[in-house]
Amino acid sequence: MGKQKVYLEKLARVVQVRNLLMRQALAECLGTLILVMFGCGSVAQLVLSGGSHGMFLTVNFAFGFAAMLGILVCGQISGGHLNPTVTLALCILGREPWRKFPIFFLSQTLGGFLGSGIIFGMYYDALTDYSQGVFKVSGENATASIFATYPSKHLTLVNGFFDQMIGTAALIICILAIVDPYNNPIPRGLEAFTVGFVVLVIGLSMGFNSGYAVNPARDLGPRLFTAIAGWGTEVFTSDSYWFFVPVFAPFLGTVVGVLVYQLMVGFHVEGEAREKAEQAAESVHLSNMTSKDTA
Amino acid sequence: MGKQKVYLEKLARVVQVRNLLMRQALAECLGTLILVMFGCGSVAQLVLSGGSHGMFLTVNFAFGFAAMLGILVCGQISGGHLNPTVTLALCILGREPWRKFPIFFLSQTLGGFLGSGIIFGMYYDALTDYSQGVFKVSGENATASIFATYPSKHLTLVNGFFDQMIGTAALIICILAIVDPYNNPIPRGLEAFTVGFVVLVIGLSMGFNSGYAVNPARDLGPRLFTAIAGWGTEVFTSDSYWFFVPVFAPFLGTVVGVLVYQLMVGFHVEGEAREKAEQAAESVHLSNMTSKDTA
Amino acid sequence: MGKQKVYLEKLARVVQVRNLLMRQALAECLGTLILVMFGCGSVAQLVLSGGSHGMFLTVNFAFGFAAMLGILVCGQISGGHLNPTVTLALCILGREPWRKFPIFFLSQTLGGFLGSGIIFGMYYDALTDYSQGVFKVSGENATASIFATYPSKHLTLVNGFFDQMIGTAALIICILAIVDPYNNPIPRGLEAFTVGFVVLVIGLSMGFNSGYAVNPARDLGPRLFTAIAGWGTEVFTSDSYWFFVPVFAPFLGTVVGVLVYQLMVGFHVEGEAREKAEQAAESVHLSNMTSKDTA
Amino acid sequence: MGKQKVYLEKLARVVQVRNLLMRQALAECLGTLILVMFGCGSVAQLVLSGGSHGMFLTVNFAFGFAAMLGILVCGQISGGHLNPTVTLALCILGREPWRKFPIFFLSQTLGGFLGSGIIFGMYYDALTDYSQGVFKVSGENATASIFATYPSKHLTLVNGFFDQMIGTAALIICILAIVDPYNNPIPRGLEAFTVGFVVLVIGLSMGFNSGYAVNPARDLGPRLFTAIAGWGTEVFTSDSYWFFVPVFAPFLGTVVGVLVYQLMVGFHVEGEAREKAEQAAESVHLSNMTSKDTA
Repeated sequence: MGKQKVYLEKLARVVQVRNLLMRQALAECLGTLILVMFGCGSVAQLVLSGGSHGMFLTVNFAFGFAAMLGILVCGQISGGHLNPTVTLALCILGREPWRKFPIFFLSQTLGGFLGSGIIFGMYYDALTDYSQGVFKVSGENATASIFATYPSKHLTLVNGFFDQMIGTAALIICILAIVDPYNNPIPRGLEAFTVGFVVLVIGLSMGFNSGYAVNPARDLGPRLFTAIAGWGTEVFTSDSYWFFVPVFAPFLGTVVGVLVYQLMVGFHVEGEAREKAEQAAESVHLSNMTSKDTA
Repeated sequence: MGKQKVYLEKLARVVQVRNLLMRQALAECLGTLILVMFGCGSVAQLVLSGGSHGMFLTVNFAFGFAAMLGILVCGQISGGHLNPTVTLALCILGREPWRKFPIFFLSQTLGGFLGSGIIFGMYYDALTDYSQGVFKVSGENATASIFATYPSKHLTLVNGFFDQMIGTAALIICILAIVDPYNNPIPRGLEAFTVGFVVLVIGLSMGFNSGYAVNPARDLGPRLFTAIAGWGTEVFTSDSYWFFVPVFAPFLGTVVGVLVYQLMVGFHVEGEAREKAEQAAESVHLSNMTSKDTA
Repeated sequence: MGKQKVYLEKLARVVQVRNLLMRQALAECLGTLILVMFGCGSVAQLVLSGGSHGMFLTVNFAFGFAAMLGILVCGQISGGHLNPTVTLALCILGREPWRKFPIFFLSQTLGGFLGSGIIFGMYYDALTDYSQGVFKVSGENATASIFATYPSKHLTLVNGFFDQMIGTAALIICILAIVDPYNNPIPRGLEAFTVGFVVLVIGLSMGFNSGYAVNPARDLGPRLFTAIAGWGTEVFTSDSYWFFVPVFAPFLGTVVGVLVYQLMVGFHVEGEAREKAEQAAESVHLSNMTSKDTA
Repeated sequence: MGKQKVYLEKLARVVQVRNLLMRQALAECLGTLILVMFGCGSVAQLVLSGGSHGMFLTVNFAFGFAAMLGILVCGQISGGHLNPTVTLALCILGREPWRKFPIFFLSQTLGGFLGSGIIFGMYYDALTDYSQGVFKVSGENATASIFATYPSKHLTLVNGFFDQMIGTAALIICILAIVDPYNNPIPRGLEAFTVGFVVLVIGLSMGFNSGYAVNPARDLGPRLFTAIAGWGTEVFTSDSYWFFVPVFAPFLGTVVGVLVYQLMVGFHVEGEAREKAEQAAESVHLSNMTSKDTA
């Protein structure tokens, strides 16, 4: 009774990671794992049940609330980006150091890889049953789209690129508003919930073209997993090397989003705050001088 | 490394808008852009996917949460009206100056125009594919209703006018309750979420007649865009000049909403607060007199 | 410019209701009006659109969020009961005076009457179109169930009575937990949201038998309206005088709910608080005695 | 008038349970009753209405919000576990004493038993109508799956075991993050809402294999009830004694969840807090020594 606590504490002292960046990378990995596990799990449930246990709306809900939960799990440690475009946006604005970008990208992608692996294991029987043992990227009973995103038939590469850019720009604009220190619109502690609604609404309105990845790690991690797990290299080559789009377009969209938000809202509130601070500093300076004079 | 921050700061100093009203107009424009982009995006997803990626409920959710996000993005700067009827209601009650009304109406309509333009670009391939290259206002494969609202077949103009009046009155009553300084029912910072639920619920119960515009800017902006983008002037002339209804009826509804809320709740709590304040002022006055006497 | 403010203030002074109970009755009336307007509106949307603009889930959402908004609008003035069973529960527990019960019941029923009237007007064209001008209580194209509740075919009166009792008891247990001063589980200001989820969940799981009225005012008000508006007295006589069930069973359910909550949770936390208070009083008494002795 | 208050107070003094553990067991029982009543009620509504009054999404919502309400009702008294795996996780981490585990398990199972009994009574007519009076565990018009969970056809026992382990591990990871005293990510009072979203998202993405019990009490209680109420012992023997899986796999999943969360997040924040506390203690010690020296 209580013995397990002693063991746990011993274990804690052995495995405790003291390097902050390492710890943050671990947290990001777990957060993205949760995002992808619940998100891709809902796609699996929709596809494998033939629609009886899901619909596109349930996938939207799942990705939204999965983002919320992923952020809750790791937010206090790493900030809960779960998405290299969020890390990039914060690096551009100078709120995170640039060296975090590659490390977070890597650990987020690893999280996506592991998350889709868990769903693969969990739905192994259903996957085999549905695809009759042959995991296909396209055609009837294709299952690759459970894990990574693929374009709809109507979509050209150019429109697809634009689609991912716009989607990510919208995501970044909303997230910047939510975490803007000069425009803090929501009670502390509710950021995760609000980001969840952002992801939900993007899915509700921007999901038809190619499944709203808007996150290179969420797309690349699971795609790598499927390449290894039996779908083969077709996951990269199909649809004229589509996989490039959800990896690169979102980063361009990030730049667009940062600029739009800063030009239309951010710079002005920031500038006002800076000017007020400068005035305050000046008046302190003046009053110091005055008080010295008086003295 | 970090250099981009210097450039951003330089850019900030160049573009910073110091005029408050101008800044608020910009913010309203971005907020309404977000509302219309996500809202009309969800209608596009529903229509263009033929129902596989959406249903009327997803449109309701999208408009509700889009309103929430739009308010979050601009609420601290401009109040987050996103809707000229909200501006009008606050002008009537003397909480906003009248000169804001035309400027906000304009910038909100511009936001709606831009938001629908983004969705047009994003779903260009899907639109072309669905409509076989001919953008039609009515008939089979009509797509104009993705952007602006059009009445159902059963609806007469008179009932349509009443529909928009009632819908807007309901919106205004709920919003007035949410922001009433004498009847503040929710924690600070949750106003945007609550307004989102108001918009959602209006869609759930008042959306069948003509798609619950209840917002002249949300309807006029996208309608102007479609007139230019290839649907032609039919967007104004169709259904016996229907476009008048969602532009004018909501303003009448605003007056009704303000009166109903004030008569049933607002005046009484306000009056009570005023009387308390007067009593307090009197007792201060009395105690001052007394203390003078004592002195 | 600004003149309207003067008129509004004059109007305010003329119409201001100074009697608290009267003011609360007005607020309850508006709150229940909102509940029934949005709630019945969603049923109208579902029925009249033939399922294209709604489903049972949207009705559940609408009633849940309508309850939330109704409470937000009137909660600060009247407590936001919107339901005579809630008033009854609070009277039984001695938290509201008994004389409020008949007055609130009346004004809530009036609110339900007005709310369904608004929906009748709003969907008049659609109602006429759907029912081909003949408003029927049962049979094909029946529309009475848009406003009041009617039992499913499988339901006996006894089971229906039990259904309404259980549903109301569940509602009351959850509401008592939410507002229990000794077991306050949620942040101030979120009560309305939580009650909204209670109503939502009751609809998701207890709505199949007879449409989860669980509220005599929500059922009786609209039923009276339909009796007058063209459906005739059949709304009372149909299904062996079913209308008795949603008026009387909920009050019995209230008593059950109050007892279950108090026996399983309420009495114990209350008792603990009382004992602590008594001990504290005693120790104050003792220390007073001691300090006197010392003195 | 007011007399009922005297009776209630007398009753309160008679029935007040002063033993804390007993009181907590009562509260857990009521909380789990609410979870199972609303949860299984929504499955009943889906199955018995043949899909007209529900779909898998409504079941997900119902279980999510039912968990939220169950926690709200009993959270202040017992912590609101509603699930023996949550109790187990907190016992492992030393935050609850081990003796609570069997007592909570028992009272949670009893709550599940009673909750399903209420739904059985509420939908008795509909159950009889649907199953033509013969309550069957499998085959056409089977109704046992309204109460307890049964595996899909594609599922092997091994995959089912893994399914329940993963689901419970995901639940535990999220709950540990929500209640971690060193990683407190959400405002006090919103824990119940957040856990509700966890349960919702598990249903959206992990519900296809066997209905996501992830809770031995939620499964065993209703299964016992069905065994007694007319479905017979087949509820235990069917699908090669499937009932073992949702009773035992979740506990294994708990251990996995605790380890994963602690290894990836918990140990590190805990360790940091401990080290800071130690340093603080040391510096206090030092400053005490210094001040003594100075003295």
